[in-house]
Amino acid sequence: MSRLVCFGELMLRLNPPGYQRFVQTESFLASYAGGEANVAVAVSCLGLEAALVTKLPDNEIGQSAVNSLRRYGVDTSRILRGGERIGIYFVEKGASQRASKVIYDRKDSAVSLADPSEYDWDAIFSGASWFHFTGITPALSDRAAAACLDACKAAKRMGLTVSCDLNYRAKLWSREKAGAVMSGLMPYVDLCIANEEDAADVFSIRPANTSVKEGKLSREGYEQVARELAARFGCKKVAITLRKSVSASDNDWAGMLYDGKTCAFSKTYPIRIVDRVGGGDSFGGGLIYALLSGMETQEAIEFAVAASCLKQTIENDFSLISVSEVKKLAGGDGSGRVQR
Amino acid sequence: MSRLVCFGELMLRLNPPGYQRFVQTESFLASYAGGEANVAVAVSCLGLEAALVTKLPDNEIGQSAVNSLRRYGVDTSRILRGGERIGIYFVEKGASQRASKVIYDRKDSAVSLADPSEYDWDAIFSGASWFHFTGITPALSDRAAAACLDACKAAKRMGLTVSCDLNYRAKLWSREKAGAVMSGLMPYVDLCIANEEDAADVFSIRPANTSVKEGKLSREGYEQVARELAARFGCKKVAITLRKSVSASDNDWAGMLYDGKTCAFSKTYPIRIVDRVGGGDSFGGGLIYALLSGMETQEAIEFAVAASCLKQTIENDFSLISVSEVKKLAGGDGSGRVQR
Amino acid sequence: MSRLVCFGELMLRLNPPGYQRFVQTESFLASYAGGEANVAVAVSCLGLEAALVTKLPDNEIGQSAVNSLRRYGVDTSRILRGGERIGIYFVEKGASQRASKVIYDRKDSAVSLADPSEYDWDAIFSGASWFHFTGITPALSDRAAAACLDACKAAKRMGLTVSCDLNYRAKLWSREKAGAVMSGLMPYVDLCIANEEDAADVFSIRPANTSVKEGKLSREGYEQVARELAARFGCKKVAITLRKSVSASDNDWAGMLYDGKTCAFSKTYPIRIVDRVGGGDSFGGGLIYALLSGMETQEAIEFAVAASCLKQTIENDFSLISVSEVKKLAGGDGSGRVQR
Amino acid sequence: MSRLVCFGELMLRLNPPGYQRFVQTESFLASYAGGEANVAVAVSCLGLEAALVTKLPDNEIGQSAVNSLRRYGVDTSRILRGGERIGIYFVEKGASQRASKVIYDRKDSAVSLADPSEYDWDAIFSGASWFHFTGITPALSDRAAAACLDACKAAKRMGLTVSCDLNYRAKLWSREKAGAVMSGLMPYVDLCIANEEDAADVFSIRPANTSVKEGKLSREGYEQVARELAARFGCKKVAITLRKSVSASDNDWAGMLYDGKTCAFSKTYPIRIVDRVGGGDSFGGGLIYALLSGMETQEAIEFAVAASCLKQTIENDFSLISVSEVKKLAGGDGSGRVQR
Amino acid sequence: MSRLVCFGELMLRLNPPGYQRFVQTESFLASYAGGEANVAVAVSCLGLEAALVTKLPDNEIGQSAVNSLRRYGVDTSRILRGGERIGIYFVEKGASQRASKVIYDRKDSAVSLADPSEYDWDAIFSGASWFHFTGITPALSDRAAAACLDACKAAKRMGLTVSCDLNYRAKLWSREKAGAVMSGLMPYVDLCIANEEDAADVFSIRPANTSVKEGKLSREGYEQVARELAARFGCKKVAITLRKSVSASDNDWAGMLYDGKTCAFSKTYPIRIVDRVGGGDSFGGGLIYALLSGMETQEAIEFAVAASCLKQTIENDFSLISVSEVKKLAGGDGSGRVQR
Amino acid sequence: MSRLVCFGELMLRLNPPGYQRFVQTESFLASYAGGEANVAVAVSCLGLEAALVTKLPDNEIGQSAVNSLRRYGVDTSRILRGGERIGIYFVEKGASQRASKVIYDRKDSAVSLADPSEYDWDAIFSGASWFHFTGITPALSDRAAAACLDACKAAKRMGLTVSCDLNYRAKLWSREKAGAVMSGLMPYVDLCIANEEDAADVFSIRPANTSVKEGKLSREGYEQVARELAARFGCKKVAITLRKSVSASDNDWAGMLYDGKTCAFSKTYPIRIVDRVGGGDSFGGGLIYALLSGMETQEAIEFAVAASCLKQTIENDFSLISVSEVKKLAGGDGSGRVQR
Repeated sequence: MSRLVCFGELMLRLNPPGYQRFVQTESFLASYAGGEANVAVAVSCLGLEAALVTKLPDNEIGQSAVNSLRRYGVDTSRILRGGERIGIYFVEKGASQRASKVIYDRKDSAVSLADPSEYDWDAIFSGASWFHFTGITPALSDRAAAACLDACKAAKRMGLTVSCDLNYRAKLWSREKAGAVMSGLMPYVDLCIANEEDAADVFSIRPANTSVKEGKLSREGYEQVARELAARFGCKKVAITLRKSVSASDNDWAGMLYDGKTCAFSKTYPIRIVDRVGGGDSFGGGLIYALLSGMETQEAIEFAVAASCLKQTIENDFSLISVSEVKKLAGGDGSGRVQR
Repeated sequence: MSRLVCFGELMLRLNPPGYQRFVQTESFLASYAGGEANVAVAVSCLGLEAALVTKLPDNEIGQSAVNSLRRYGVDTSRILRGGERIGIYFVEKGASQRASKVIYDRKDSAVSLADPSEYDWDAIFSGASWFHFTGITPALSDRAAAACLDACKAAKRMGLTVSCDLNYRAKLWSREKAGAVMSGLMPYVDLCIANEEDAADVFSIRPANTSVKEGKLSREGYEQVARELAARFGCKKVAITLRKSVSASDNDWAGMLYDGKTCAFSKTYPIRIVDRVGGGDSFGGGLIYALLSGMETQEAIEFAVAASCLKQTIENDFSLISVSEVKKLAGGDGSGRVQR
Repeated sequence: MSRLVCFGELMLRLNPPGYQRFVQTESFLASYAGGEANVAVAVSCLGLEAALVTKLPDNEIGQSAVNSLRRYGVDTSRILRGGERIGIYFVEKGASQRASKVIYDRKDSAVSLADPSEYDWDAIFSGASWFHFTGITPALSDRAAAACLDACKAAKRMGLTVSCDLNYRAKLWSREKAGAVMSGLMPYVDLCIANEEDAADVFSIRPANTSVKEGKLSREGYEQVARELAARFGCKKVAITLRKSVSASDNDWAGMLYDGKTCAFSKTYPIRIVDRVGGGDSFGGGLIYALLSGMETQEAIEFAVAASCLKQTIENDFSLISVSEVKKLAGGDGSGRVQR
Repeated sequence: MSRLVCFGELMLRLNPPGYQRFVQTESFLASYAGGEANVAVAVSCLGLEAALVTKLPDNEIGQSAVNSLRRYGVDTSRILRGGERIGIYFVEKGASQRASKVIYDRKDSAVSLADPSEYDWDAIFSGASWFHFTGITPALSDRAAAACLDACKAAKRMGLTVSCDLNYRAKLWSREKAGAVMSGLMPYVDLCIANEEDAADVFSIRPANTSVKEGKLSREGYEQVARELAARFGCKKVAITLRKSVSASDNDWAGMLYDGKTCAFSKTYPIRIVDRVGGGDSFGGGLIYALLSGMETQEAIEFAVAASCLKQTIENDFSLISVSEVKKLAGGDGSGRVQR
Repeated sequence: MSRLVCFGELMLRLNPPGYQRFVQTESFLASYAGGEANVAVAVSCLGLEAALVTKLPDNEIGQSAVNSLRRYGVDTSRILRGGERIGIYFVEKGASQRASKVIYDRKDSAVSLADPSEYDWDAIFSGASWFHFTGITPALSDRAAAACLDACKAAKRMGLTVSCDLNYRAKLWSREKAGAVMSGLMPYVDLCIANEEDAADVFSIRPANTSVKEGKLSREGYEQVARELAARFGCKKVAITLRKSVSASDNDWAGMLYDGKTCAFSKTYPIRIVDRVGGGDSFGGGLIYALLSGMETQEAIEFAVAASCLKQTIENDFSLISVSEVKKLAGGDGSGRVQR
Repeated sequence: MSRLVCFGELMLRLNPPGYQRFVQTESFLASYAGGEANVAVAVSCLGLEAALVTKLPDNEIGQSAVNSLRRYGVDTSRILRGGERIGIYFVEKGASQRASKVIYDRKDSAVSLADPSEYDWDAIFSGASWFHFTGITPALSDRAAAACLDACKAAKRMGLTVSCDLNYRAKLWSREKAGAVMSGLMPYVDLCIANEEDAADVFSIRPANTSVKEGKLSREGYEQVARELAARFGCKKVAITLRKSVSASDNDWAGMLYDGKTCAFSKTYPIRIVDRVGGGDSFGGGLIYALLSGMETQEAIEFAVAASCLKQTIENDFSLISVSEVKKLAGGDGSGRVQR
């Protein structure tokens, strides 16, 4: 029995060591990750029970994926086994003016081909209080989208809070299709999470006075985006991450949370990036933890942003951060003095 | 202009370092390999021009695959670029009683989905004298089988010698389908290469008094297999590798070559295995080199077996062996004394 | 609820990469292991539920130890957290005539200082059917010995089968003390496991016609040892592993199981050693699995010996072996042919 | 037939991993590099045909050097094989206030001892349109200087554009000898490339109001240097790189190109250095590509500086950068946002 | 015969590679370090003879610790061998807002249990001119504190200069005990070294207008601290390091030296941190070298701060820095330009 | 003051990790080694004082070479610093039928260009009792040969025992020159060491009934070789190592010692090779230790052969073996059982 249930793909992540380019490398570091799995791990490391629902091939690579979640305490008992392959993605880490690159090889993964009927959502949600998915899951395939809708309906019926990170992926679907499918899911969503571009990509809701590419982000513009998302789909809360990418090595990181009344903005952290992939998922996990723990709006957004700031200082997608570490940073100590 | 043209898939090979199991590893060594690519590399390292024909995605992973061939001098100018993915296979190295494991994730690779019309065989074979493929290529897809047949016809028309390594892969097709498709290709084949099980798997031609699993291989039985293959399909030569697997760490390795008249058996080498994957391809490459160089039957089989013995003492699929090294071993010096 | 509960120390294992000596190395590979933990992992990988009871410090190293068990599915919910340190051992891998070396730094580990009252055995054993410990646990400290006795009594009271691997460690206690303490625990033991030297070290029961150092092991001698162990302490079954150490690189490995009536000897496997540490524990885990699965005496000893043969072909203590792999080897296929 | 032909030494580069000092390391990362080889690789990766002319020993280390060029598509068919040794250099990467260190062991390398008569420049330049060398080549030995002069004469005679990067190396020759020899080669040079110190070192042409050590670089001063170089030797174009070294970790990077009429200055990039060795060569390669592609002066200098900015964010000397990456940065997007 | 004798613990340092967290790592880089050993190595690398007095177990790990000192020229002939264990500490490197973490496992190390009578200080100090210890040594155990007092008395008696780095460690003792014990040792100390917090922790001497956590350090406040330390205990000189921790990746670093008359402050270096552990010890070593070499106050503090700035740009505790490197930086060249 | 003084070259050894071929590797493991340095390290690890006399460049690579000796306790105070380069050799490890390869790049190393007058043999030998060199030292250059003769004369004059390992290197000099030079040095040699081929190569003294390449070594033949060497040059003792190379992975290893009266042959060890380079030097070091320790002929040869057997089970040239390990093996325990 886990309080949080996440549904989505778990992939094999392959990245060259250090700053090697793809064409230089003779080896890949192997880890396992995915938008929803990252949230489950983040919440588990923060101390709450979390489960992932997905489907993985019944071979040693699929087993290694399962093991990677068990290692950090995520409940894997609801994972289906079967299908032919695990999705794979390759990550080349950028530096300075050179951007990180991601190459996806996720087509026809086991979870994308799983039939919606394979999931027994009533059993899966038994004892749970929160359901989380991202816009990647319905983008995987029509089957996955249908399963996602089933899950949303069951979650609502069983009284769970539902959160969705829009997470638009242009490689997986068009803006048009994303808009259409996500519009059908959003009515079930209590907490909508987005990055600084998602609302525009998926729902054509654009912040005024903002140019992401040039690093100009308007607070008022994003508050307006949040209010419009809430109004259009009836979400109770909307959270938006605000990343100003100075370079691949340096990002400014902040977030805001709109609770239906007011908009709380977090502190902004200038981050020396170790690995920024999974930063948004860590934000989602931190926010879910904060709200499940009863934090107020300002406290919750500070917690979520501090957690995801710390995630970007560690390797790989998983947010292996403790509550005390987050609270120390959110409380103002980002001096990085040695903890002996 | 290359003397040898090979046609087949080039895959990304991922294997855990050392003797790590899949479920233990946190990294994969990355190399690129494939039955026909391995032959091209073997022949190039032996000093003759060799080219690979395949199709690879137009991204950095595909480029790395191309680069891995260029590094060892293989002509990559005929490689098509496009499609969505490169085939991948995972290799776990066995030891002692624990067998090596291979997990394939090669479905829908660029080469398997390439349309036969994408290959201009007349241009490809211009200036070449030998065409090589293996039973893996037609097993990839019906399109690949059709392309293979086109290639065989063009090769014959243009006067090339054609060799085929039967290389049966149960994961790719059934024995029945293999038998049917290969029977259509064999009439174009001058040199047929097989391991100790292929002829039985593909054509139900079984050696008498032999049990591969128990490590009992009958010379007379294999001579009979060769004669039957030659008789049934009109091959001029048949070569068979004879592996006695004592354990994953120790193999006895030998081969035979039937030239339409007599059957020449090579010396048998007891090998301390470093990496046996690609051993058969190295044999094929050694044999093609030997025959292109005008060696007689006994000399040719000794050369091919010595080359492939040496390949199994180095990591990865590629047979990075020089003519002088092969000749030293074939000439009787396998003492492994330091060369200063 | 796990069928098997193990009680013992979980240590940080540090070993130089490859064949590096301690004085050469600039790094240590880190894993976590212990006689009882190894058994729990072996049984979990074979597919049955297994739990470890121990105590680990409440810091990140202790957490990493917990994670290493969760990764392979072992139930860690009964592990106590606290105390100051985790036990550590250093392993230098031998080769040929050079023996492996182990340096222990395990004094005052959390589990050795834990008070017997910290364990609630009734709750721990709830739902379990088998309890396993080794002679290392009572050797850790008087407190650990007392806890072990408590556990044995509770296990018997609750109807569990109890197994004990004698596992004599000269660095931890004298033969005299071992004999005295173990004599108090043995009456609770249903299945006694020993290696070729333990019975002599702990209880002065010596096989006739045997010289372990010279590699001469007498079957009759060990049958007599088993009968005497069973007679003296009332064990229902006695299992003994028979290792003939040809060199650090090559061992012959076999075992026997006495079931109160007859003595079944397994096949003997000549092993090219990858890592022999944990081989005995893998035997124990394999035997427990076999008996829990209802195998008869001969089948059970063949299963246990095949499992532990395979363990010695992989790195580190943990026996990451599946039932199908064990059955393939026990069924006679140790040829190590590639599994594609 | 390659459009660009480079002539110079290809060395084995050995550097400790990460930030290890020479006295700490137990291993060296091995790559192959040289001022002219780096230019050839840069141009090949940008998509034009490039060849290197050099001499390498006929052993496996020499072969590995050849392979390192083939891997990235450089034509190696004109490389002479023979001589006794390859030049070697050791690189220790600096950080913050600690400078990188280079130790050369290049004396008596094969290329430095090659007789000028070994090179058949008419054949080498057949079909080529551009010849590039650096001031390192004539500094290697009198023989190399003579070969360089032969090459310049042949190139001019055959109508090639000639470029030279002054690249003064104090360890190889004195300022006096450099000035004398280079003055004899410069009349053949169409495009002269220099860093912020070379013109002063080789020809005593100093920019006004500039202190490289203190990081003060005067634009007007360098424009004057360019005009003087062009005037003195008749070069059509002069390009100068302008590096402001804030620390070993942070450099500001820019460049200028004088086309005989006006001086175009590029944007300045603040770089978080991954590896700055080879930055100047990447600039040269980028500039040659830009001019061969018909770019105008301002566009060409922006392209060359963006290419070499990106090079300094990747490991080793080789500039493994594509045209699209350069154009994206030159076009203004240096935000380093993830490319999915 | 060494000019400098240091007395303290030498530990095994284990840190995950790169920025891996403890819970992510599968290996530890192994080195050996300790506050006093670090000083001895720093001084040895600067060119003066230095010895370490400690006790290490008589096994291969203890020998490796000895070897790590011999490698850098430290005299190890006075090291006692015996006891059961070497102290161990684990270091997780922080980045950006995430602090480095240190976990100690040093209890009951050989040196902490050594009897004061095991040290023959008259023999140890024979021929020496300087004795150095830190506040860590007396904090190890009452025995170690007694040995430290013995050493101080002998050193004074034999005319050595005595230096002490206060180095308060909260994990080892309380502020109260530290104050009491250190007050008994300080009367023997000629040069007292402290970081920006030590004087407050040990002697409740606090700088005015300073908040270390917020990064505000008052020069006047620290001058007052130095004067008060000198006055209270009769030290001839007091040196204080002033670290402003911007984040785990960026620190500002400076120092001051009070010579009984005036207070000299060094330049401040903004450091991109590679590894800051051991920075204070490198300062101590640099200062001892400077004073032994006869530098004046301002020159000495500049030398010590430049040396320790450079140390923080290299991995591990040891300060492998030469005099010429320190002088180059102290002389104003921190531009990090490549040294060819 | 050291009992043993060795004179010879110390080189940088670069070898690819594991079984990688030169053309595959992207990195080299770095160590330092040389025939005489290896002997010094072996003797130092066995517990006697040993020094190396050589010349190394005054840069960080030269310093690392010095440090590699200090680490293992060798006295480096007599090493000259200067010259331009350190000798380098590349080692590719063989396996099974594939031989190891060594590529030398040692020409013009500092020690080969050192003037004989740079060595003050009277000071160097002060307090020493044994002088050792190998046939490699005089082969380096005429200067080195002259220095070697100076050393021999001084050693004899000062009463040292002199040993020489013939160590013929065909890459350094011809058999004729070797014979001429060595004949001039042999009259000073008390103990002559040779492998199974050296006496034939240098002095045309061939064993009867022996074929090294075929692995047939005649005991009587080698006894005759020893007697002839002793007779011709007046050596008191002659030791010969007898290696039967079954393959690069398996060697049989033995040795003999002729003491002027009788010939003692050691046990033969079948070795699973980890790294055989340096095996002969380890034999020399073991023998010198044995004779310095007063062992009789049979005991001494058993000690030397056991020591060098163990060396071949560890990586790199250095013989990091203790007396107790050697005695355990020489005493008959080569079972490789774990030492806990």
